[in-house]
Amino acid sequence: MSESGTSGGINSEVYMQQDSEGIDCSTLLGAFDTVRSRSRWLTDVLEIEDYGLQPMPDASPAKWHLAHTTWFFETFLLKPFAPSWRPLNERYEYLFNSYYNAVGAQFPRTRRGDLSRPTVREVLAYRDAVDDAMRELLLRSGNSVDVAQRTVLGLNHEEQHQELILTDLKYAFGQNPLLPAYAHAHVGPRRAAQTLSWTEHPGDVFEIGASVHSIGSNPRCFVFDNETPRHRVLLEPFALADRCVTSGEWLAFMADGGYSSPELWLSDGWAWLQSPGALRAPLYWHRNDGGWFEYTLAGEREIDPDAPVTHISFYEADAYARWVGARLPTEAEWEVMAERHATPSPNYLDERCLHPRSSAGPGTGPRDLLGNQWEWTSSPYGAYPGFRPAAGALGEYNGKFMCNQLVLRGGSCATPQGHVRPSYRNFFYPPNQWQFTGVRLARDL
Amino acid sequence: MSESGTSGGINSEVYMQQDSEGIDCSTLLGAFDTVRSRSRWLTDVLEIEDYGLQPMPDASPAKWHLAHTTWFFETFLLKPFAPSWRPLNERYEYLFNSYYNAVGAQFPRTRRGDLSRPTVREVLAYRDAVDDAMRELLLRSGNSVDVAQRTVLGLNHEEQHQELILTDLKYAFGQNPLLPAYAHAHVGPRRAAQTLSWTEHPGDVFEIGASVHSIGSNPRCFVFDNETPRHRVLLEPFALADRCVTSGEWLAFMADGGYSSPELWLSDGWAWLQSPGALRAPLYWHRNDGGWFEYTLAGEREIDPDAPVTHISFYEADAYARWVGARLPTEAEWEVMAERHATPSPNYLDERCLHPRSSAGPGTGPRDLLGNQWEWTSSPYGAYPGFRPAAGALGEYNGKFMCNQLVLRGGSCATPQGHVRPSYRNFFYPPNQWQFTGVRLARDL
Amino acid sequence: MSESGTSGGINSEVYMQQDSEGIDCSTLLGAFDTVRSRSRWLTDVLEIEDYGLQPMPDASPAKWHLAHTTWFFETFLLKPFAPSWRPLNERYEYLFNSYYNAVGAQFPRTRRGDLSRPTVREVLAYRDAVDDAMRELLLRSGNSVDVAQRTVLGLNHEEQHQELILTDLKYAFGQNPLLPAYAHAHVGPRRAAQTLSWTEHPGDVFEIGASVHSIGSNPRCFVFDNETPRHRVLLEPFALADRCVTSGEWLAFMADGGYSSPELWLSDGWAWLQSPGALRAPLYWHRNDGGWFEYTLAGEREIDPDAPVTHISFYEADAYARWVGARLPTEAEWEVMAERHATPSPNYLDERCLHPRSSAGPGTGPRDLLGNQWEWTSSPYGAYPGFRPAAGALGEYNGKFMCNQLVLRGGSCATPQGHVRPSYRNFFYPPNQWQFTGVRLARDL
Amino acid sequence: MSESGTSGGINSEVYMQQDSEGIDCSTLLGAFDTVRSRSRWLTDVLEIEDYGLQPMPDASPAKWHLAHTTWFFETFLLKPFAPSWRPLNERYEYLFNSYYNAVGAQFPRTRRGDLSRPTVREVLAYRDAVDDAMRELLLRSGNSVDVAQRTVLGLNHEEQHQELILTDLKYAFGQNPLLPAYAHAHVGPRRAAQTLSWTEHPGDVFEIGASVHSIGSNPRCFVFDNETPRHRVLLEPFALADRCVTSGEWLAFMADGGYSSPELWLSDGWAWLQSPGALRAPLYWHRNDGGWFEYTLAGEREIDPDAPVTHISFYEADAYARWVGARLPTEAEWEVMAERHATPSPNYLDERCLHPRSSAGPGTGPRDLLGNQWEWTSSPYGAYPGFRPAAGALGEYNGKFMCNQLVLRGGSCATPQGHVRPSYRNFFYPPNQWQFTGVRLARDL
Repeated sequence: MSESGTSGGINSEVYMQQDSEGIDCSTLLGAFDTVRSRSRWLTDVLEIEDYGLQPMPDASPAKWHLAHTTWFFETFLLKPFAPSWRPLNERYEYLFNSYYNAVGAQFPRTRRGDLSRPTVREVLAYRDAVDDAMRELLLRSGNSVDVAQRTVLGLNHEEQHQELILTDLKYAFGQNPLLPAYAHAHVGPRRAAQTLSWTEHPGDVFEIGASVHSIGSNPRCFVFDNETPRHRVLLEPFALADRCVTSGEWLAFMADGGYSSPELWLSDGWAWLQSPGALRAPLYWHRNDGGWFEYTLAGEREIDPDAPVTHISFYEADAYARWVGARLPTEAEWEVMAERHATPSPNYLDERCLHPRSSAGPGTGPRDLLGNQWEWTSSPYGAYPGFRPAAGALGEYNGKFMCNQLVLRGGSCATPQGHVRPSYRNFFYPPNQWQFTGVRLARDL
Repeated sequence: MSESGTSGGINSEVYMQQDSEGIDCSTLLGAFDTVRSRSRWLTDVLEIEDYGLQPMPDASPAKWHLAHTTWFFETFLLKPFAPSWRPLNERYEYLFNSYYNAVGAQFPRTRRGDLSRPTVREVLAYRDAVDDAMRELLLRSGNSVDVAQRTVLGLNHEEQHQELILTDLKYAFGQNPLLPAYAHAHVGPRRAAQTLSWTEHPGDVFEIGASVHSIGSNPRCFVFDNETPRHRVLLEPFALADRCVTSGEWLAFMADGGYSSPELWLSDGWAWLQSPGALRAPLYWHRNDGGWFEYTLAGEREIDPDAPVTHISFYEADAYARWVGARLPTEAEWEVMAERHATPSPNYLDERCLHPRSSAGPGTGPRDLLGNQWEWTSSPYGAYPGFRPAAGALGEYNGKFMCNQLVLRGGSCATPQGHVRPSYRNFFYPPNQWQFTGVRLARDL
Repeated sequence: MSESGTSGGINSEVYMQQDSEGIDCSTLLGAFDTVRSRSRWLTDVLEIEDYGLQPMPDASPAKWHLAHTTWFFETFLLKPFAPSWRPLNERYEYLFNSYYNAVGAQFPRTRRGDLSRPTVREVLAYRDAVDDAMRELLLRSGNSVDVAQRTVLGLNHEEQHQELILTDLKYAFGQNPLLPAYAHAHVGPRRAAQTLSWTEHPGDVFEIGASVHSIGSNPRCFVFDNETPRHRVLLEPFALADRCVTSGEWLAFMADGGYSSPELWLSDGWAWLQSPGALRAPLYWHRNDGGWFEYTLAGEREIDPDAPVTHISFYEADAYARWVGARLPTEAEWEVMAERHATPSPNYLDERCLHPRSSAGPGTGPRDLLGNQWEWTSSPYGAYPGFRPAAGALGEYNGKFMCNQLVLRGGSCATPQGHVRPSYRNFFYPPNQWQFTGVRLARDL
Repeated sequence: MSESGTSGGINSEVYMQQDSEGIDCSTLLGAFDTVRSRSRWLTDVLEIEDYGLQPMPDASPAKWHLAHTTWFFETFLLKPFAPSWRPLNERYEYLFNSYYNAVGAQFPRTRRGDLSRPTVREVLAYRDAVDDAMRELLLRSGNSVDVAQRTVLGLNHEEQHQELILTDLKYAFGQNPLLPAYAHAHVGPRRAAQTLSWTEHPGDVFEIGASVHSIGSNPRCFVFDNETPRHRVLLEPFALADRCVTSGEWLAFMADGGYSSPELWLSDGWAWLQSPGALRAPLYWHRNDGGWFEYTLAGEREIDPDAPVTHISFYEADAYARWVGARLPTEAEWEVMAERHATPSPNYLDERCLHPRSSAGPGTGPRDLLGNQWEWTSSPYGAYPGFRPAAGALGEYNGKFMCNQLVLRGGSCATPQGHVRPSYRNFFYPPNQWQFTGVRLARDL
């Protein structure tokens, strides 16, 4: 769910459940400080030079993420609700608008890496100024439903960009022959993956999606509009794998000629494989004399055959499933399972591992449905029955990205804790690989 | 449902219902002659020069269609079942294979128009030789389930290419400043379109898709594998428009700035509109001093505001629906309606009108669901629950095209009569315009 | 010297020497019939399908060449000088204009192969109608200097297109896996190439280029404006090879890693070699199990090591010269030598060999400077000192192509006899290979 | 004369004249410190963020220039001549090699802007380490001909990159909507341009180019190999304009439809004008409500009609000359004039004006032939007669760029004083605009 016209977008309509006590300004203020300071923490170990990289159109500079998330609060909160607000620089509206046509024109997305000015220092000053004004606004008007709602949306928006800061940075670092490590990442211990087992489901009519009843003070009671409305779905009996496909299993797929067998691939996937520069291995994998290595945010390391394979495109995920005689789950199958099977100690950004870890441990049922890595489903991203687009700039594009993308579920090791839930829908184009994306198999019963 | 890796593919797994009497060779032979001679009839008014045109990668030369459909019978029937068959030219296997990797390598699809040899005369001789051998095979082995099944598949495959012969030719002629007419096309009389009315549906659980129980002698009891299995769907209450959007309504959309309002467009659709050479009107429309004209297979004519607008991309269809406050139907909604509402005197290829005509006449309910033009649905093309890919080259790619395309329903004025049915699923990429494709609206109740 | 904006152009300013007797209408009429009928003869062995091919933007369809050369006479002779002329089709002006902006807009050059209409029959009728009107005009006004001058230019223009008909056709046939032969081509006997010897030249100040004094009735007393004015050049002592590089020598270059040694290549040439689809052998060469073969207009044949290597780009020619420690000649060096050394029995189109033959035979000095194949020089194509562009559409672009191209000299086996002379300047872009182009070495003394 | 495979290259063979006293180490050391410290001075006013920009493939990051010029000394001096040298990082050889295939592989040129590491601080440390070792080497072995020769080459190489640092930076800043100024640039006073006058030349045989006799201690007695050998040229009588075309004259060209008149343009130039994003004004010009403005390194300012128009492509220069009925000079004409007419107080980098200023002042004859801006000639860049490529990596590509580029003469306001001379040959592709390039007219007499 990137910020852009070519790779998804934030789901900008906010839906919050209001509890009986109403909106609590101090809770909101606390959430604001927590989220905003996390963006600073994520980038405070970077060199100034690292802030400006855009090694491909989809991967925006960290500096841009810091400024754009700030622009969001300035544009949708301060300008309409804080009469005394004075913009630091009138051009920021143009420079840091991502794709909101109702707000105005945008600096070309593919050239964000060409801007050395404003500098990092200036962008941080921009953040500070907006933060000060926002705190003042929340103290004064935080119990306004509109202000609270937009603030919570802005915070969820920023959490999405926090994940992008990490994945975009990984892409930039991973292209540099020096393979620099990201200082906040640490390598977790290796552990054996569990044997592949399956959890069965009898099928029937179920409900999925999020209900929206009220708007409240708890920023965690938030869902994006694309998760709504809650609606019935019909499921046939199926089984879902208890863990994702591992790197060791992927090596077997490669050894069996998986990347050179057209019968395993979707037609568009095979064409993608023939395009110039296409890899025949997961993104960030490199073959050295000593075997296969992969770049992680903690630096290069030998492939761990027990860890889930990650940075897999939809085309690769689909081909693997065909090779093994299974299929990808639908998003409804995934969600029904996720509602039943909690993920114990999920691997989120807050763990600072910043790499998917092997699924293991006691107990039964699907592991790591939440956290660790996004899981491709076979479901094209589209509107739920009864979905209603919202009005205005914030809801301008509620359905704008509902074409040509596939739904992913579950969040990843780069997702802030609490940001995702079973009903959360992420979406990317089938060739995209730079997110933490993996494969969980399903099959008919 | 074109023949290619970039625009869909034939759905090559055959499912036929066998009646109690078994397979009747003479019926099969009659169907064979009917279909094969129609291809000849379609092209017999062409100049030799017309047979070789490939004005864009998706639009193959008529000569190639004539040869490829013949190659299908040679490859899947004669080579395995007719021991005495001797190929006319060993290179034809390479030249006329479309995308069957299990059969072997293929001449590059984008360069089919670069082949002056074999000549038309040689391709027709190829057809004659294969036809003779096929008739002999059918007389001898037509009651073999395998032979009958593959023959019926080959005939349905050829019917798909008959539609492509016409639409590809239209594209080629439509790019020529001389705007030549296609001699078999005749202009139908104009008639007023009916007022836009809606037919409501209460929703509930229904079955859609085709049942496959048996294989029989009736070539009309055929469905493609992608129509199966019959399965339950949940529908919410909805209404479907009784006719498609007209050219007059489209002119209003254009006059209201429809092509320059980003809020109406999917993000990918808006990007498509900004690409070099993008039109701001339906394909084949031209603005002269006297107003808007369109190229039809019968030649250029003034826009008929009562006729359905045609040659519309999915992006355009979707934008129009948003502009008017409605939406496109899902394929399940469409099919449930089509099972209830027969199209009286549908406009198929056999009518030789070769252009969608205005929907009118007595009676109520949706008109022209079958024939006239393909109707975009909002449903991404994918596998039905329980869909099973077949084995071997014929079934090599049962699911190969189930990504990035949208389902269209109903057949068109270029579809041979009897080729389509309510469960028939066509599919194209969202920007495709060169088929007879239009817009029927739906809305929630 | 192709007909187009991307690959050179006709040199449309006519310079003719007038002898004392003035203009002789019957000579002009005879030349007109000779040249015009040769175009028909060149194409009369083609299948109708062959006339329409445009396998790459530079290679126009034979039908287009037949029409464009006719358009030239219609536009520059009949329209201004034949008051009773009535165009057969007003759109032909648009369809068959190559690049004369002063005449009007042009149908896009890259899409000439997309036009099935007008048909071959219609184009031949167009030729007949223009020929009749031209003959009438020449009988009536052939002694008009203006008419005679434009007619002679039109005939030289058509001779250029006759060469292009053959080379464009060769490209089209050479891309077809069936490798059809061109019926007018015949294979000449093989003969051993002479040992490479050199002819020395002391250098000094010389004159090159064509003098223009008068305009006369002899169509052979014609030069293009880019050959003028005659002017002095300074030459340092040099030696010129007595024959072109042979295919056997080229095989040695390939065996020595010539195509994989960056130090041999110009920077732009090396980049060209790395581009997708770049060959590592001359155009039309194929490696089979039995060794190297090449497609000739007479069909595929084994490489003849004694024949000159042909279809070589400038980049390849330059790399070969560097590999062997020599260099390419300048156009001045070439012309000074060609003025001294006649080519006995040159291999022109009229020989119908249509492939360069090995240089051999008695006598000394450079062989085959004229005919056989065009020879790359190291001279960028530009204006001679004192060059004067002409006025009007015919001279609109006298200097238009004088950038980014290299001069070639001597004519080829596809050049009509009498069309070239020592001062004749052809020009192509450095990567072009589809003309009969080879390498003659030079070195400093 | 950029550093790259797509836009020229350093002319890496060094030719120095040795005076009788031999090589003087202290002079060499002084030159080394002067040049090396100028690179630091040029960049010391930049923000860290500014060092990494590569807004187009031709415009490398300042950080890369600082590192690559250092790599040159490390590779060609320290590695072969300083036994105790230990590289700071083995990957720098790969990262900072521009195009020397004999040295090894190179990091892709188009992705230099994607490298945040090494940081600016690390690159400056790299410079310091190499500088220390170089000073030690020069003290110890500076009287070695080989060391002196390579050092002088390295310094001239670095001076070329100093100009590129400024022009690449200007391109990056000029694309940023904030249009930041470069702190070292100052705006010079405006002054009226002199009336256009011409200096005539009778033509004859002359010598141009540089003589190379000896190698010495004076780093200023240096020429690049492409300036040699000195050789005779034939000139016809001609006249050269006393000043370059002004911005005011360019506005008249624009007002007269210069950019929309195909008859003024070379065929390739017209095609370039039709390409997406092509400007119809000089680079850096913007039309505001108040008229035309241009971005200069000192910031945006209103067009000065008296200043020379700059940032002009060859295609534009050639079209302008045709419009005005003149032509561009050949490089021989230019050089013969430049040897006769000294430029009083030329405008070099050391002036810190960093923009061409209007030519005026007392005296007669051509002004500002040296300094101010590069002047396009009509001469394709090629080898002088008798040019000899050198051996080894330093001379690997002596002729590598002698194709498809045009010669420019005279140096610019961004060229270090003393770097250029009348025989100096710069070269760029015809569409290139990002150097300080202008138009001086010539005409035949």
